Amino acid sequence: MSDQPSAATVAFLGPAGTYSHAAAIKLFPEITRWLPVADIQEVFSAVECGKAHWGVVPVENSSEGSVLPTLDGFVQSQLCICAELLLRIEHCLIATEATVVSGIKTIASHQQSLGQCRQWLKQHYPDLEQMPVSSNAEAARMAAITEGLAAIAGKTAASLYGLNLLQESIEDAQDNTTRFLVIGNCAASKPTGKDKTSIIILAHNEPGTLFRALEPFHRFGISLTKLESRPSRKAAWSYLFYVDLEGHQDDEAVRQALHELEQLAIEVKVLGSYPAAVAE
Amino acid sequence: MSDQPSAATVAFLGPAGTYSHAAAIKLFPEITRWLPVADIQEVFSAVECGKAHWGVVPVENSSEGSVLPTLDGFVQSQLCICAELLLRIEHCLIATEATVVSGIKTIASHQQSLGQCRQWLKQHYPDLEQMPVSSNAEAARMAAITEGLAAIAGKTAASLYGLNLLQESIEDAQDNTTRFLVIGNCAASKPTGKDKTSIIILAHNEPGTLFRALEPFHRFGISLTKLESRPSRKAAWSYLFYVDLEGHQDDEAVRQALHELEQLAIEVKVLGSYPAAVAE
Repeated sequence: MSDQPSAATVAFLGPAGTYSHAAAIKLFPEITRWLPVADIQEVFSAVECGKAHWGVVPVENSSEGSVLPTLDGFVQSQLCICAELLLRIEHCLIATEATVVSGIKTIASHQQSLGQCRQWLKQHYPDLEQMPVSSNAEAARMAAITEGLAAIAGKTAASLYGLNLLQESIEDAQDNTTRFLVIGNCAASKPTGKDKTSIIILAHNEPGTLFRALEPFHRFGISLTKLESRPSRKAAWSYLFYVDLEGHQDDEAVRQALHELEQLAIEVKVLGSYPAAVAE
Repeated sequence: MSDQPSAATVAFLGPAGTYSHAAAIKLFPEITRWLPVADIQEVFSAVECGKAHWGVVPVENSSEGSVLPTLDGFVQSQLCICAELLLRIEHCLIATEATVVSGIKTIASHQQSLGQCRQWLKQHYPDLEQMPVSSNAEAARMAAITEGLAAIAGKTAASLYGLNLLQESIEDAQDNTTRFLVIGNCAASKPTGKDKTSIIILAHNEPGTLFRALEPFHRFGISLTKLESRPSRKAAWSYLFYVDLEGHQDDEAVRQALHELEQLAIEVKVLGSYPAAVAE
């Protein structure tokens, strides 16, 4: 991120040592004022109320799919997407020396991380209790003070909480990657030639509505890189669609396709155009 | 469900008292042999290995969206969908007398139920710790033995665990409904004139692939009632699509659309055709 005021604050899903923290450090290498918060909704509200200039939120993991609180957060919020980052996720099994000696009874981690290590856990620890907690770093913090409790978390968390690395790279998919977004009150970035645009479509609840919504993109040769449906929360069984597309909202083809889509849908909300991230 | 062998066993997400249990009782009113299991994957495996004849799994909630372990379960499994049910979900805040007297410190429930009561919790208990556990009934079981712990669960669970109803109907959406599926080794049901068919599409990872996959359904006038994307778990950022459509796989239009789709996609898996449920 360029144009960072030197005293800018960045909010992320804490505590210190989460993958969100690792992503935030990569995205804002010169920032030193961090605001770890308790959940993804709080990242949005910290930026909205001015406690932080930017927020960093996970939006999708390559194995587990979308991070639903992030998608749902954009519905209520007026914040924009300013940037994205792809972060390789390498999970480790970590615990204190005392837990290693007495034996592991419970494995704690964020629900998504437990899911990302499902096969490995089934193979190595099929009978242990799994405890879903609010973040990987929270699992590490608990593991540091609870005998019998091991955590699944990254190396950053292990070193921060002084835990032993019992096993590295335990994720089932060795190309496990999480996509993070920077959210803020940002002015639209200039087209770079390799951008992405994220939108939310609130479509009429009628047969064929999604097909008709996708048609303009197809006709203008615009690739969709993601399509996710979520309940609209306005009426049972009505849906919103989250769409990521290749191109910038200032590109002529994207502009025209969005214009046509606006005629068809109840609402089209453009969340932002930003440079497409490159995988690590 | 008709044609139930009298000694048939039905597996569901336990323990006793879950909404899955309530759904199973509605679907199989004459069955008395129940097999509560620990997670959704186990419902699939109990039916696959013959421990149960049928399984009952939640697949989607009208506020929170898809139940991802159920969608993911169908990818690995050869089981079919034999029936569906729509169950109105009424959440209650429940606790022991001792907890009421000493004060509530923690509220436990399944993550989806906490999500379905988000606004109510924010308004009434903004500062309490929320504890996600494996099921609502498990939360009720814990509330029965843990002072200071209240649970969000249904009335069935409250009465089963002898807990007080502190507040009823605390769900944010008053039309909150969960859709359940019956899974089994079932022969395809006969068309009734008002059926649904569920399929999984493994599409080529190319621009425009989803649009082209939906085109035959549009052309044959077939309505899609659900479309959900999930990671394929074969390569990062490649997707499967879960589609529910109106009609039976033996209907001529559905048969032709599926045939055309098979030419376009890597794989099309038909999970079953079954009578469409009517909302309560």
